[in-house]
Amino acid sequence: MTYCIGIALDKGLVFCSDSRTNAGIDQVSTYSKMHVFGRDGERLFVLLSAGNLATTQAVVHELEHDIRQQADPNLLSVNSLAEAADYIGEVSVKRQAKFREGGLSSFDPKVTFILGGQLRGEPAGIFLIYPEGNHITTSRDHPFLQIGESKYGKPILDRVITAGTSIDDAAKCAIVSMDSTLRSNLSVGPPIELRVYETDTLTAGRYLKFGDDDAYLRALAKGWNQKLIEAFTTLPEIDWAR
Amino acid sequence: MTYCIGIALDKGLVFCSDSRTNAGIDQVSTYSKMHVFGRDGERLFVLLSAGNLATTQAVVHELEHDIRQQADPNLLSVNSLAEAADYIGEVSVKRQAKFREGGLSSFDPKVTFILGGQLRGEPAGIFLIYPEGNHITTSRDHPFLQIGESKYGKPILDRVITAGTSIDDAAKCAIVSMDSTLRSNLSVGPPIELRVYETDTLTAGRYLKFGDDDAYLRALAKGWNQKLIEAFTTLPEIDWAR
Repeated sequence: MTYCIGIALDKGLVFCSDSRTNAGIDQVSTYSKMHVFGRDGERLFVLLSAGNLATTQAVVHELEHDIRQQADPNLLSVNSLAEAADYIGEVSVKRQAKFREGGLSSFDPKVTFILGGQLRGEPAGIFLIYPEGNHITTSRDHPFLQIGESKYGKPILDRVITAGTSIDDAAKCAIVSMDSTLRSNLSVGPPIELRVYETDTLTAGRYLKFGDDDAYLRALAKGWNQKLIEAFTTLPEIDWAR
Repeated sequence: MTYCIGIALDKGLVFCSDSRTNAGIDQVSTYSKMHVFGRDGERLFVLLSAGNLATTQAVVHELEHDIRQQADPNLLSVNSLAEAADYIGEVSVKRQAKFREGGLSSFDPKVTFILGGQLRGEPAGIFLIYPEGNHITTSRDHPFLQIGESKYGKPILDRVITAGTSIDDAAKCAIVSMDSTLRSNLSVGPPIELRVYETDTLTAGRYLKFGDDDAYLRALAKGWNQKLIEAFTTLPEIDWAR
């Protein structure tokens, strides 16, 4: 499986993704699920993917190919983030349909995407593109979107993230959310990629990749575990006699 | 949906369940998902259920009816917890098959159970009974089982629960796990039922029911939220310049 998060803040965007893919439990590999497209000073897109790896790669290759061929549309020609989401949704549906034709009835070529970024003169934003090609975006009340194994890491995002959260706090929270998921689900694994985009910079922004033995990731995981257990022990005891 | 937890500790068992059921988003009701069977001093069974409510009720009624009719087997005649799990699995499969016959192909009568308890002279234990009627039990390395919406509340159980955890700490942890789930998923709701069984007592043990406006549940939810946010703010900042 996969776990990816996209957060839309007042001051910018945060993206976080794991890198584990598996086709059966004995065929586990590492692939980046974070793809960046754009032109500095003009537009930036970050695409996160969850689902069938072959479909994902086919979609990403077609997006890149369309840019090179100056196809209409392509990611450098669309006029808004929503238009980009429409286009990626169409490419995804087309690729899934092709793979479904050739596959067994139990074969599932579905992919779900998170697309975030900004075009010059437009607001920054984040979309979740369903396998059916339709999409939703964030709101100030619900400023984050998740794909893949999203449940383990949702509680801490629910508690911490608001549209007003700082980019650095949201980035740290994304890593904590990822840590909870890594710990509870073997199908999600490092390296963890983290990218933050500050609104109106129109360039790829800060990026970090955390490997399995990354000192910060380990310190954070250990610190968070200790603090959670400390916090737990200070909670009021159950009064059974009430 | 549903969320139920069964924990098997060195000193006893902990059971926790929510009470929300829904058949479509506009048909939400409250039903206990915790059923107790047995004979004081001889045997105790606690059954938690997740899945189709009609199947659950049919299975519980058949278990009760079999006890009254002294059918062979029934929960008062089986010789071990594993035998009880087999029997409940068989009743469940039979009921599901009956309801599937009469239903649309999209209709899903599946139920998953957690069964815990003890028979005199046997060890206490907990089983998870799949819709297919087969079952698994806990181990010292994996001392808890969950059914229903299990992912939101798994991280805190993974961090806190070991076979050596005290009954009171495990009960509190079950409530915290339930709180994380309630907060992140509307389909899980109060009242929350909590029951603890101390090994070799062979009686139903301590029980509490926490309503929506329960003072302890509110204090715990608020305290846990505050402490998590405090813990989060003290975590080391990401060093982007490394």
